[in-house]
Amino acid sequence: MSDQNASQNFRAVDVIRKKRDGVELTGGEIEALVNAYTKGDVPDYQVSAWLMAAVLRGMTRAETAALTDAMLHSGEVLDLSSLAAKKVDKHSTGGVGDKTSLVLAPLVAAAGVAVPMISGRGLGHTGGTLDKLEAIPGFNVNLPVARFRRVLEACGCAMIGQTAEIAPADRKLYALRDVTGTVESPYLICASIMSKKLAEGIDALVLDVKTGSGAFMKSEQDAAFLAELMVETGERMGKHVVALITDMDQPLGNMIGNALEVIEVIDILRGDGPEDLRELCLHLAGWMLQLGGASKTVAEGKQISSDLISSGKALERFRMLIELQGGDPSVIDAPKKLPQAAHKLEVTSPKSGYISGMQCEQIGVAGVILGGGRERKEDSVDPAVGIILHKKVGDHVQKGEPLATVHYNASASAGRAQQLIAESYTFSETPPVKKRPLIHRVIGRVGEKD
Amino acid sequence: MSDQNASQNFRAVDVIRKKRDGVELTGGEIEALVNAYTKGDVPDYQVSAWLMAAVLRGMTRAETAALTDAMLHSGEVLDLSSLAAKKVDKHSTGGVGDKTSLVLAPLVAAAGVAVPMISGRGLGHTGGTLDKLEAIPGFNVNLPVARFRRVLEACGCAMIGQTAEIAPADRKLYALRDVTGTVESPYLICASIMSKKLAEGIDALVLDVKTGSGAFMKSEQDAAFLAELMVETGERMGKHVVALITDMDQPLGNMIGNALEVIEVIDILRGDGPEDLRELCLHLAGWMLQLGGASKTVAEGKQISSDLISSGKALERFRMLIELQGGDPSVIDAPKKLPQAAHKLEVTSPKSGYISGMQCEQIGVAGVILGGGRERKEDSVDPAVGIILHKKVGDHVQKGEPLATVHYNASASAGRAQQLIAESYTFSETPPVKKRPLIHRVIGRVGEKD
Repeated sequence: MSDQNASQNFRAVDVIRKKRDGVELTGGEIEALVNAYTKGDVPDYQVSAWLMAAVLRGMTRAETAALTDAMLHSGEVLDLSSLAAKKVDKHSTGGVGDKTSLVLAPLVAAAGVAVPMISGRGLGHTGGTLDKLEAIPGFNVNLPVARFRRVLEACGCAMIGQTAEIAPADRKLYALRDVTGTVESPYLICASIMSKKLAEGIDALVLDVKTGSGAFMKSEQDAAFLAELMVETGERMGKHVVALITDMDQPLGNMIGNALEVIEVIDILRGDGPEDLRELCLHLAGWMLQLGGASKTVAEGKQISSDLISSGKALERFRMLIELQGGDPSVIDAPKKLPQAAHKLEVTSPKSGYISGMQCEQIGVAGVILGGGRERKEDSVDPAVGIILHKKVGDHVQKGEPLATVHYNASASAGRAQQLIAESYTFSETPPVKKRPLIHRVIGRVGEKD
Repeated sequence: MSDQNASQNFRAVDVIRKKRDGVELTGGEIEALVNAYTKGDVPDYQVSAWLMAAVLRGMTRAETAALTDAMLHSGEVLDLSSLAAKKVDKHSTGGVGDKTSLVLAPLVAAAGVAVPMISGRGLGHTGGTLDKLEAIPGFNVNLPVARFRRVLEACGCAMIGQTAEIAPADRKLYALRDVTGTVESPYLICASIMSKKLAEGIDALVLDVKTGSGAFMKSEQDAAFLAELMVETGERMGKHVVALITDMDQPLGNMIGNALEVIEVIDILRGDGPEDLRELCLHLAGWMLQLGGASKTVAEGKQISSDLISSGKALERFRMLIELQGGDPSVIDAPKKLPQAAHKLEVTSPKSGYISGMQCEQIGVAGVILGGGRERKEDSVDPAVGIILHKKVGDHVQKGEPLATVHYNASASAGRAQQLIAESYTFSETPPVKKRPLIHRVIGRVGEKD
């Protein structure tokens, strides 16, 4: 095994050793490493050693920004300056039942702020926006950039998956991180998220950083650390970025599963749906409108968003989006046209009392077991299966009353999912004294009017 | 990129994550990783991430022993039980002018203890036993195992390079460590050294762990840490191991360079040669004899060794070794038959006074620049070039008097080497108050008679 960069000024092994010894790398060193790796001039085995050193040594703010910048510029950066509207996106770190993107894109677009959204698929216990969209018959998330741009111009929003042209360094690095135990680093997570999002050609970004038992960052402290890192990285790169630390200690809304979540999205856009999901969507939309210049304050942005739901304009925008991306818009009026599971099974309460907590990740895992999510990236998902929650934290329940309904196609998985869901609930005789807030804190340009 | 072990019980990524998080690995996990890597079932990029995690997290004694054991058993372990004599080897962590192996193998063999020595080549500023042996015309260090065994039976010692059969995991791991910044870890160094040495089928091992400006471990603390680690690893594997922490703050002996060092070895075996080199050889031999059962105490072992030099028996054994391994034994009586450099150059003292110190690594680098060592593994060496030191620490010198003589073939390198050597000396007006000891401490079975 020889050092393949021997003949160049840049030697990967020197950069690895420097990082190993806790010495700050220059922007030039990071850029050289990322560029050489993307071109195939530095092998995987050197980069994985560097990644592990970065995980264990951490990275400075300047290093994180340099890594983000190098990954961002490893591919195409969309130029959407021809669109008059400001471009604002939202990114969530992922959770269970988190379907806000499907609400926000049409809602914010209806307010005159463009949303060029590039999303991912579900992995592990968390769902993914692309899987949810694909539950709509015909919906195409694989648009070429030119068509993505046309949909965005016509509709004010467009929702696709990552293309080969956008941040190829991230795709290569993420695949390597996945098999080398180097996923769990706030610095690398930040660079991965921000490089892809900033490649969308946006003016501003709202980050929804989840915390709690169903989040990747279980503790609020870890979530806040990642949030601050992403906000600072975005600001260093000249973008307006706000992060909301929001609760994922129980699933968001009542429905989990791709087609079921589309139904709940339509409910919200109709002005119905569960309170927590509506509240979070309005809050995120309020920030997107404020950053996008469509409102002076976040409160005004929330009000505008609420009005766009009441007037039906947000739902009509969703219908337009589905149609423009090849989907069947009639699902909005006939949700039965969405894929439906063949069987249902109740999860009943083993006792009477108040729900004191839910092990949220476990409920996400139950959804994966049913076939609604992925254990490995190569897995396909069953859009029809899922879980409807009838009881959440703070609710009172009688023994034998249904806690949840499992929608399933394969009976082998249903029993295990049923058990996992039942076990995820904890009970108390008295109502919980202190309810966890939906929004824990806001990090970034708080108080600014932009 | 997919996890190539997905279908097995053992998943490399789980072992990497565990190490990353500072959790102790089981012997089974380490064995599975090493075996899978040796077979090619685990790719380089996973092992390099694991290596970096091991460098930064450290390893427990049990993990270090398990790694050593797995690497040892990745290949052939010599069975020398048919030899009646006890088998004892010596290993040095490397330094400048360290030619003790060439003295010890015939000397200890002459005392009736077998020395099956498998050595390495020089790298960086340090020399290597194989390069020194190859300075003897015809000397073959690449014997097949069967011939190695025959030489050992006939002569009581044999000196070869690592074979493809011995510890293949170490060869593969070392090549990977070299390009991934994971060389500098006492745990990995220990496993690399001990796996190869224990594969020699020895009963006992004397380690010469160098400390000072010409050693890999500059501080005595680091040297002692590595020494303790190797002693404990060897003892855990049922071998008698003693480590001597010895001085490498200035070159050992007066000659540096492959042919020049062979001359100094012959001098020592004749009862001449520099005091520090003779003293260290006798001390190491004393320990080897004691561990090999040829003496009751180390002092007795030293005396036996001294007598074997005085009687000429040690030198005769060296002659036999050279002859059995295809070399020209007449070099012993006619050192001019060894390769000789075309030119000589004096390094003169810039001032009068006492030598207060020598930057030892810098003198080693001067030897490399002359062509006597390797900057990269692929480089070839010039056996003829080198340095003869006329002054060492504590010596008095007059301005203009020679400090050293450079033997060179390429004049371009001579000036640079000359300058490096001159700059490596420091001077004081008074003699050094405290002299560094030759042997700093002994770690292991001290006081035992075995």
